[in-house]
Amino acid sequence: MADKYTDFVSRGWGRDLAKRLGLPQPVRLRRYEPGAPLVPGPVLLIGTGPGADSLETALKGWDVEVLRDPGIATAAGGTHDAGGSASSSASPAAPGANAPTGGTAKLGGIVLALDSITRPEDLAGPVLAAGRALRSLAPNARVVTVSRRSSTADEPALAAARAGVEGILRSLAKELRSGATGNGILLAEGVSAEVPSALGALRFLLSGRSAFVDGQFLTVGTAKGELPADPDKPLAGKVAVVTGAARGIGAAIARTLARDGAKLVVVDVPAAGDSLAKVANEVRGTALQLDITKPDAGERILEHALSRHGAFDILVHNAGITRDKLLANMDAAKWDAVIAVNIAAQLRINDALMGSGRLPDGFRIVSVASTSGIAGNRGQTNYAASKAGVMGMVRSTAARLAATGGTANAVAPGFIETEMTAKIPFATREVARRLNSLQQGGLPLDVAEAIGFFASDAAGGISGNVLRVCGQNLVGQ
Amino acid sequence: MADKYTDFVSRGWGRDLAKRLGLPQPVRLRRYEPGAPLVPGPVLLIGTGPGADSLETALKGWDVEVLRDPGIATAAGGTHDAGGSASSSASPAAPGANAPTGGTAKLGGIVLALDSITRPEDLAGPVLAAGRALRSLAPNARVVTVSRRSSTADEPALAAARAGVEGILRSLAKELRSGATGNGILLAEGVSAEVPSALGALRFLLSGRSAFVDGQFLTVGTAKGELPADPDKPLAGKVAVVTGAARGIGAAIARTLARDGAKLVVVDVPAAGDSLAKVANEVRGTALQLDITKPDAGERILEHALSRHGAFDILVHNAGITRDKLLANMDAAKWDAVIAVNIAAQLRINDALMGSGRLPDGFRIVSVASTSGIAGNRGQTNYAASKAGVMGMVRSTAARLAATGGTANAVAPGFIETEMTAKIPFATREVARRLNSLQQGGLPLDVAEAIGFFASDAAGGISGNVLRVCGQNLVGQ
Repeated sequence: MADKYTDFVSRGWGRDLAKRLGLPQPVRLRRYEPGAPLVPGPVLLIGTGPGADSLETALKGWDVEVLRDPGIATAAGGTHDAGGSASSSASPAAPGANAPTGGTAKLGGIVLALDSITRPEDLAGPVLAAGRALRSLAPNARVVTVSRRSSTADEPALAAARAGVEGILRSLAKELRSGATGNGILLAEGVSAEVPSALGALRFLLSGRSAFVDGQFLTVGTAKGELPADPDKPLAGKVAVVTGAARGIGAAIARTLARDGAKLVVVDVPAAGDSLAKVANEVRGTALQLDITKPDAGERILEHALSRHGAFDILVHNAGITRDKLLANMDAAKWDAVIAVNIAAQLRINDALMGSGRLPDGFRIVSVASTSGIAGNRGQTNYAASKAGVMGMVRSTAARLAATGGTANAVAPGFIETEMTAKIPFATREVARRLNSLQQGGLPLDVAEAIGFFASDAAGGISGNVLRVCGQNLVGQ
Repeated sequence: MADKYTDFVSRGWGRDLAKRLGLPQPVRLRRYEPGAPLVPGPVLLIGTGPGADSLETALKGWDVEVLRDPGIATAAGGTHDAGGSASSSASPAAPGANAPTGGTAKLGGIVLALDSITRPEDLAGPVLAAGRALRSLAPNARVVTVSRRSSTADEPALAAARAGVEGILRSLAKELRSGATGNGILLAEGVSAEVPSALGALRFLLSGRSAFVDGQFLTVGTAKGELPADPDKPLAGKVAVVTGAARGIGAAIARTLARDGAKLVVVDVPAAGDSLAKVANEVRGTALQLDITKPDAGERILEHALSRHGAFDILVHNAGITRDKLLANMDAAKWDAVIAVNIAAQLRINDALMGSGRLPDGFRIVSVASTSGIAGNRGQTNYAASKAGVMGMVRSTAARLAATGGTANAVAPGFIETEMTAKIPFATREVARRLNSLQQGGLPLDVAEAIGFFASDAAGGISGNVLRVCGQNLVGQ
């Protein structure tokens, strides 16, 4: 398999194609391990003002070495005012380019505080400073922008500057190599860079938890949220319900939330009872066999969580099915089954829960959407309808949960290595897997980490977001 | 060139790749010709309620035969209640599939009135009816959905149903073949399907003017706007200024607006004076040699338009440059030049015009953005910053022009066949050109047609939109 792929991208047409699509050799991604450093080296912090100062304080609190002199790592072989710790002798970001030399530690990341820009012309200084440091990035490093969400209320120049960051970040993410990613944080007007969810998002994006998140933005809408006492146990004491948890991504979600301290209720259809029991046992949670399309599914989930665990803090709508057919060949049974499981059930369960008067303040809903719901996909009109529907539902539900401090968000996976994708024919799978900036499929764990972040107290100010976990998959609107 | 491409997609790995990416033989697209029928056959109108009735009335007013019985073209060889005019003996949408037989005219389009759906379950009926008719579509036919924009103010089920349409349309557009396209109209709450801009958008999307628009949505925000007296001269009597008009897309815009009845001011840098004069002569307009980055550019444009033509109704910001480099190699000169021309100049000119007090009510601004500004592009951090900036600017400017009935919109071209793209190396260009649902690059004319639509009175209720003209290019967020 690897040989065929390597042959193809090594010469002639295939080489040109690979170059155009950005398909070099994929690297093993850095993923989260409890106790490991947050980033693989010091972080270069670019930007001035209170936003940058807040970020520096937070980074240092996380035991990250912070370099603030943009003079470091400038031009080839430049001086190293910050102790030479940010330069490198190799050049992971641009192999063969004219790399700075003489330093000891490569950069673990670059953070650009852009929250005070007011005109497009303001972007040049910090962005070019970041550019000069790119050759010093360690493999699996992170670039994170912190800027403000563009709004129609902004004056045109301000709106242009803020929107411009999205073009920069998405381009830059496509230029990074060796497992490095680029993502951004968008602060709503009036929300400072030091609010818990901005710092929580920064930590998530710097960490190995966001390994397969690339070219994406998290929007922090409010100052709500709270950083965890123990960053390795951000869900300590929470009770979480995960649907479709007997296998695949659902099982990974259950394991990941349990690892992070949550008590789990794993839900799946009775036919998957054995697998479900194993997962429940593994995560020391309880199993609930349930067809989520039944009218009383919401009530049964609520009763189970409250009676068995005495609380119910997090609901992860993961259960979903595919019944692919070209629309010209689609029958009502295939269409209706997908709509019933993937969206109608989520709506009915949410209705029951939100109408019960028994949810705690700060309740979290996280739904699994799909890049197919964003970009559409041949053969998936029904699936894309359901997943686009999930995104619409999440935005609306977020508005309804805001009064009690709750949040609703969605994660949109791209190509994830599962039993389902393993059944795709070789060449199709091989192409699909590489059509993203990280040149590989993601793992169920990567989806689970993003869900864990949305479920955490640190994300209390983040609601109505749809986060793609797709390695910056090429596809889009 | 064609041989190499055909060889590649005809066997082995290449065939699988082509299948995955949807790269069969491209067809010649149907483009607008004055006097030609709006669509290449009758239109099947699916849906009930006042929205559908309004659309039927409009279609008939445009001399389009309307079929409203979804029983036509059901299942293979079914009955043909509408005179058998909607079936076909071949199957352009799904070659080799079980096609209905016996009819005489293939469908020129399918219009789905979905504006009254309230739950995701409501989608099945009309969408499956459309599916049954897909095999009867003529080459270069159109599928257009008319639905409501999903909003956080919607109840979750309503938001899910409305958002679901986007997933359906984007998937369906990827399933259509033979030059057929799928696009949608999103009505804001309280805006009916019979307002001028909804009908104007429908006409645009059905026509050959939208040949390279695929998988996209136009949002109608208000009941403003007016359908033209003569649909072949929608810009009659308007004075339009086009920047960067000496060649390429800018020249095509000038020609297209002139064809549609506008009086033209073509603007370009003095160095392009000869080419500019030729274009001005060709469109019987006037030429203005001007560096748009100069502080007085706005005033000079205004003075020229008013003094030479006595009016100024439409401004098209087309002028733009690229200075591609990986950010690691980007210098300040390349960065600054792109920002100065592509976004800062537009902002300064708009400021001068909007502050002059001399613009008429209903003034139109249309900017050329780029799919690079949406998706990012390797080597184009500066260009993507400027083009994403244009989109932010347009949304903000739209809000500011609303009080006087003006609009600001942007067109985001994908791969367009120009002198610039002709210089891309063969294999890269060949791949880039095919990476969209229409398997070909667009023409400068296609960009110009979209700009012409935004500039027209019919689009008076459409503002702050960014319309991709990209053949449903694969790339996205």
